[in-house]
Amino acid sequence: MGRVPWVHPVVITLAVITALVVVRNPAGFRRFVIGRPLRTRDADSPRQQLGWFMGFAVLAADLYSSVAYGPEAGLTELQLAWHAAQWWILPITLAIVGLLTLLIVTYILGVRAYPGGGGAYAIAKDNFSQHWIALLAASALLTDYILTVAVSVSAGVAAVVSAYPMLAPFHVLLSVVSIVLILVVNLRGVSDSARLFAWPTLLFIITMLVLVGTGIVDVGHHGVFQQQTPPFGTMPHALTVLLLLKAFSSACSALTGLETISNSVPIFRHPQAENAVRAYITLGVVTAITLLGFSFLLWVQNIPVNAHNTMLSQLAQRYFGHGPVYQVMMAVTYIVLILAANSTFSGFPQLAARMANDGYLPRALAIRGDRLVYSNGILLLAALAILLVEIFHAQTNALIPLYAIGVFVSFTIAQVGLARRWQRTRQGRWRLKQAMQLFGAVITALVALVFAVTKFTQGAWVVLLIIPVLVTGCLGVARHYARIRDELRIDRKLKRPQPHQVLTIVFASGIHRVLLESLSFAQSLGTETIVVYIGFDEASIEEMERKWKEWGNPCRLVTLYSEYRSLVGPVARFLQRMEQWEHRPDAVHVIIPQLIPTKPWQYLLHNHTGLILSNWLLRHRDVVVTTVPYHLGETPRKVPTL
Amino acid sequence: MGRVPWVHPVVITLAVITALVVVRNPAGFRRFVIGRPLRTRDADSPRQQLGWFMGFAVLAADLYSSVAYGPEAGLTELQLAWHAAQWWILPITLAIVGLLTLLIVTYILGVRAYPGGGGAYAIAKDNFSQHWIALLAASALLTDYILTVAVSVSAGVAAVVSAYPMLAPFHVLLSVVSIVLILVVNLRGVSDSARLFAWPTLLFIITMLVLVGTGIVDVGHHGVFQQQTPPFGTMPHALTVLLLLKAFSSACSALTGLETISNSVPIFRHPQAENAVRAYITLGVVTAITLLGFSFLLWVQNIPVNAHNTMLSQLAQRYFGHGPVYQVMMAVTYIVLILAANSTFSGFPQLAARMANDGYLPRALAIRGDRLVYSNGILLLAALAILLVEIFHAQTNALIPLYAIGVFVSFTIAQVGLARRWQRTRQGRWRLKQAMQLFGAVITALVALVFAVTKFTQGAWVVLLIIPVLVTGCLGVARHYARIRDELRIDRKLKRPQPHQVLTIVFASGIHRVLLESLSFAQSLGTETIVVYIGFDEASIEEMERKWKEWGNPCRLVTLYSEYRSLVGPVARFLQRMEQWEHRPDAVHVIIPQLIPTKPWQYLLHNHTGLILSNWLLRHRDVVVTTVPYHLGETPRKVPTL
Repeated sequence: MGRVPWVHPVVITLAVITALVVVRNPAGFRRFVIGRPLRTRDADSPRQQLGWFMGFAVLAADLYSSVAYGPEAGLTELQLAWHAAQWWILPITLAIVGLLTLLIVTYILGVRAYPGGGGAYAIAKDNFSQHWIALLAASALLTDYILTVAVSVSAGVAAVVSAYPMLAPFHVLLSVVSIVLILVVNLRGVSDSARLFAWPTLLFIITMLVLVGTGIVDVGHHGVFQQQTPPFGTMPHALTVLLLLKAFSSACSALTGLETISNSVPIFRHPQAENAVRAYITLGVVTAITLLGFSFLLWVQNIPVNAHNTMLSQLAQRYFGHGPVYQVMMAVTYIVLILAANSTFSGFPQLAARMANDGYLPRALAIRGDRLVYSNGILLLAALAILLVEIFHAQTNALIPLYAIGVFVSFTIAQVGLARRWQRTRQGRWRLKQAMQLFGAVITALVALVFAVTKFTQGAWVVLLIIPVLVTGCLGVARHYARIRDELRIDRKLKRPQPHQVLTIVFASGIHRVLLESLSFAQSLGTETIVVYIGFDEASIEEMERKWKEWGNPCRLVTLYSEYRSLVGPVARFLQRMEQWEHRPDAVHVIIPQLIPTKPWQYLLHNHTGLILSNWLLRHRDVVVTTVPYHLGETPRKVPTL
Repeated sequence: MGRVPWVHPVVITLAVITALVVVRNPAGFRRFVIGRPLRTRDADSPRQQLGWFMGFAVLAADLYSSVAYGPEAGLTELQLAWHAAQWWILPITLAIVGLLTLLIVTYILGVRAYPGGGGAYAIAKDNFSQHWIALLAASALLTDYILTVAVSVSAGVAAVVSAYPMLAPFHVLLSVVSIVLILVVNLRGVSDSARLFAWPTLLFIITMLVLVGTGIVDVGHHGVFQQQTPPFGTMPHALTVLLLLKAFSSACSALTGLETISNSVPIFRHPQAENAVRAYITLGVVTAITLLGFSFLLWVQNIPVNAHNTMLSQLAQRYFGHGPVYQVMMAVTYIVLILAANSTFSGFPQLAARMANDGYLPRALAIRGDRLVYSNGILLLAALAILLVEIFHAQTNALIPLYAIGVFVSFTIAQVGLARRWQRTRQGRWRLKQAMQLFGAVITALVALVFAVTKFTQGAWVVLLIIPVLVTGCLGVARHYARIRDELRIDRKLKRPQPHQVLTIVFASGIHRVLLESLSFAQSLGTETIVVYIGFDEASIEEMERKWKEWGNPCRLVTLYSEYRSLVGPVARFLQRMEQWEHRPDAVHVIIPQLIPTKPWQYLLHNHTGLILSNWLLRHRDVVVTTVPYHLGETPRKVPTL
């Protein structure tokens, strides 16, 4: 028993209690968790708009939080290969900062061109006539959004576990619980609380800058080459170009979340585009400083890979010990990574709803729930993220190879799309902008390619498989909706409803009050009625026929014998035989009586043969199916009432 | 990525392929896995009957296989406490053999009294007027049957893993796969292949006797006290009565499966009871010899606890190395433990079906599936056993504390029941039989008590919680069925079906071919019809009203505005308002049009608002609900046909 953690009884007990609460009062539980429904017209109430600095603080978490795992991911690749290769993290980080600058410039151009917000899907839809390109950008983004949640939450929990190693066995559980919490918050809708999110992010940025500053001051005192510092400039034999590219692409995960501000321009006060640009520049500068400083200190302090203690945590421990500064830092790291995952919970459902409205995804994703958010998209994202966390045991480094390909694919498409736009609009210095955009596109395409090749066997193949499958799926969905639209259209001049001759068949499982109600209903319609009974043995058929006579033979009774104990077989054969009748009806109407228990658990006690039969009939035969409910436990009624 | 075992992609790929096959052709997949359906009348075909020896061989697996984990479970408790306490396994095993003798004698008396088979539930139903006693015996047995599957399969896989340590990471997976295989075999039905099962069991018994014999010869050569043998007769301070009782109750798991022969008397050739008794005696003697010899050798050879190498495997390795004898032994151990789990797959569903027929469990458990076996009981057992294996990571020793309480509770009830029977029938030497039975009952009750107390914190509390919950549940189920029977009965002289005035309401989501069909059907009935449209904004309501006029106003149109985007809210209010109408109808009949896609995946693309609405209406309002299906992708029809 010692091997089974004590948490199991607790989890099971909680699950049982929750299940009981849900079963007893599902509507009440729902209201307790996500709050009372909101009116549709409240959706368009003006949102508080933010100045550039608050906007920066609110939207920074997504990109900035990536510093918590980006450099670590790159350095891990280097260390696993060769200790003396660690110094390569410095040129790699420099290259990433260059890429960051390039991307921020092109995104600023994008914000100016599409101030309504939109991102790669909108840009591609506007600038390419081929639908699949926009779908490629969207699928890549959707895939990456799911990975963002899994990676951010896993990294956030890793920060907590670093500070409290006793929590290590619950790593996966804590990650799942975190996702469920984000899910609930988003199902409630968070519209106006965005301002609250600014403070932990600012605190995180400040603590990171303090960490980097402390490190630099320390280097000023002790010099760069301290006792533990690994060699610089060595070129071990084991070091290959492939390895460096691998480390580079892993470290590129630090750039994820860059697109957030461009999707959220409407959140800024006027002049919106100007404020967004200022926020972008600030975010870029702060991120670049942090990345460079953090990577430099990781190398100087020779921080090793440790699955239970993140490099950020180890570095902070070197300078601050385990005191309050360290504790605050880890807590804030967790919160900011959760906020990054949280921002994805607005990005993913909005993109999915946009695609559903365009007919590329199931319509259910475009429905606003009780709280006016796209609940189905939110639930889908949470379910997929939890699945990923479970499969990869919440190991950030196991998820990184799947991550960021999607973002770089969508970066590339967005930039090529913008370049086509400059070509079309030909305003201002369009040639310069276009050149820069195309240069950026080449670079991001190269990064995506490097990712795909170097991480292929480690998991990137999954993403490279899923994205085309998604694109094909979206095109199939669009075809399906188009076909239905054509099929259902009525030629108004010709088609009017017209009555026809209907035969009503009532299914009976015996002679009791349920059949009485169904038969009363059938005889209220002006149609011919027969009763059908299916028996599993001859004795029961004879008994039914006898009782029917005793009951006064209210209408024609047909008995069917089922030798394989199946209901649908005899019914299907009976319907087929009916087609050969001389006076066969235009339409067949089947009445199925159904017991409705008073309590949900009582459903388990009934065999639902009626439900099975009605589902089968609706799917396989062109008959109309009527369910006459019989509510158990109510006072017997003479006739059905409202 | 290195932490994620390679098995994940494989498992996921297999799962995806299976899912695709199932979705494309569910009926074909079902037939491939479980075979073509069998006729009801084939159920009673005479079964091959067996002589006492073959009967013994076929039914031995259940009890005899327990030697593979019983002594190990007891010795593990002793070793974990104190090395020098190991010799206590000898008196403990002696006590268990005494208990075995006593139980076999009382079971032989039981077989003579109830030659039709039956077990504790039947005995208790026959001899106690209080229903809850029979239910207590049955619940205890059901719980223990589930544990038997989990324990036997885990122990069987442990034997395989001992022989091939490279399989250790897949312990849980192999256990689950084994259960799924047993499940499939049982869903197919195994009626006449029982004879096949005799051979591995006999081979296992022979190899065990050879092992014990080899050990005894070895002791003859080298003496009892060899270099490694732990001390005998020492009384370390750490040794408490509690610890000894713990070890004893763990080792008692060797007695599970004792009831199998008594449940299967009809399998024997005439004279049935005599043959069953002979089989019982043979089984008892062989089991006693094996238990004593095995425990003795475990002590002599000082076999340690090893999570990845069972004690049986270690002992066999000492005498036979890793050669063919050892390999065969481990293979046969696995097979016999799987057979033990397999025999539970007939015991559990039969007991559940018996209880369902008596109205204590859902009726679904008494339905024979395509292959005439109680498929629902089989599926339920497999699902619960897999759940247990997952929760306890297929660790036999973690499951043992939950195990065997149930069996001893049912042993006790069966014996008290038999004692009451002797009291009633007063035949032959009834006083002697009764005294023995009561003595046995006291002993088994004590064992159950010792189990419950010593293992309480390690997991026995779960069982002690579940059994009363099950009993209460069964009584609740019986009350529910009785209430329905009373409620549905028709007083035949008075109640005849009588027509009443019906109002038909057709729900429309727009004007299209689906509505056309529904409206045509509605107008074929001799009832008043109105069409109801629910709009989420005013624009859509105005458009519907305009189009309705254009369409020629086929009947009255009612439009409802839903400000919370809910369907049921406006509908409920509309139905309430209707109750105040002057000429309100006797009954309300709601028609809901439903799109039926051609392929299952296309269900994802539709919002099923009709389905949601119809489920809600059936559950919450006393209205009749009709679904008019519209099959997509078929050639347009003028009127619905067969």
